[in-house]
Amino acid sequence: MDIIDKLTETLKQRQQAEPDGSYVASLYAAGLNKILEKVGEEATEVILAAKDADPAADNPELIGEVADLWFHTMVMLIHLNSTPTEVLNLLDKRFGVSGLDEKRSRTS
Amino acid sequence: MDIIDKLTETLKQRQQAEPDGSYVASLYAAGLNKILEKVGEEATEVILAAKDADPAADNPELIGEVADLWFHTMVMLIHLNSTPTEVLNLLDKRFGVSGLDEKRSRTS
Amino acid sequence: MDIIDKLTETLKQRQQAEPDGSYVASLYAAGLNKILEKVGEEATEVILAAKDADPAADNPELIGEVADLWFHTMVMLIHLNSTPTEVLNLLDKRFGVSGLDEKRSRTS
Amino acid sequence: MDIIDKLTETLKQRQQAEPDGSYVASLYAAGLNKILEKVGEEATEVILAAKDADPAADNPELIGEVADLWFHTMVMLIHLNSTPTEVLNLLDKRFGVSGLDEKRSRTS
Repeated sequence: MDIIDKLTETLKQRQQAEPDGSYVASLYAAGLNKILEKVGEEATEVILAAKDADPAADNPELIGEVADLWFHTMVMLIHLNSTPTEVLNLLDKRFGVSGLDEKRSRTS
Repeated sequence: MDIIDKLTETLKQRQQAEPDGSYVASLYAAGLNKILEKVGEEATEVILAAKDADPAADNPELIGEVADLWFHTMVMLIHLNSTPTEVLNLLDKRFGVSGLDEKRSRTS
Repeated sequence: MDIIDKLTETLKQRQQAEPDGSYVASLYAAGLNKILEKVGEEATEVILAAKDADPAADNPELIGEVADLWFHTMVMLIHLNSTPTEVLNLLDKRFGVSGLDEKRSRTS
Repeated sequence: MDIIDKLTETLKQRQQAEPDGSYVASLYAAGLNKILEKVGEEATEVILAAKDADPAADNPELIGEVADLWFHTMVMLIHLNSTPTEVLNLLDKRFGVSGLDEKRSRTS
């Protein structure tokens, strides 16, 4: 079971959790706008970390910010009764067959 | 081989491609700011699609926008010589052991 | 008559213009999501220009991006039947009396 | 003296203030990334407030979010030794003469 499946499972379980016992449950309880504020914040932090990144070195700060961004988009998907699997399936449909003609798949 | 690995492979191959033959190669050639503009645009489109989403229905537009956002963050990672695998490993480290105490892992 | 008043006047006149004769009229016709995509894009471009700015020099690119951001937020306000004057009046209320205690005014 | 001039004056004075006595001075002390995080956050909040706005009513929340966004872009400009006046002058140059041909001015 890979990490995205495990994380999806965890995020779904959190829908039954008490808001004060779980960060994710507190986001669900705060509602969609709060979750989307986090998505916007994390996107900004990804952009700043990328501008500060050194392509010749490890960039743990950038990795951490992308992890935060992906995490909060997953929370958003679960909150809206969608799943990360749908996103991965779409990426697979766009890129998976030949894996090679992303331009055509994007413009068609 | 899962979709994120396949996509990573493809995005790395694009670093050797001609800019006018590949959307991704044209992004690499345009440089980091152009890639980050796309990340910012797609984050905005995710937020708008989430506001317009119906939690009781399928939301293909939202799924498409999240796919675009994840895709362009992957392009950014490869452009900066990082990998999506590093992000997944970090998520696994944060959430993978018990899968259950995301709050503690985030605040520690 | 200052520039914000003049610009407000112009943006209101554009509500009666043909979409294909005016950039602003085309934004109104495209609708709120299109206008907000522009706000998100311009905010990203402000952030990138600020990261690239040199504090010891003129920064025409940064000034241009902030102008674009303010411009599109004004288009958004007019589209929603609000006005930039309301924003300026609120800033005046927050900062105008003494001009000096922005912290208290923000947290109260 | 209009509000933007007054606010500029105040924001410049804050460059000499103690970080713990002023919200703006604390932003300057935290540095550019912190200021840009605020710009990104406020842009997201503008977008959310606009999606929730009712065009047939007053929208104090939207006005408040735009005020926050403009305020933090002004803090950013001062921090980088630029001024809001430069932005207004550029808008005047683009729109001020006839006030009427914003499309041509934007594309030229």
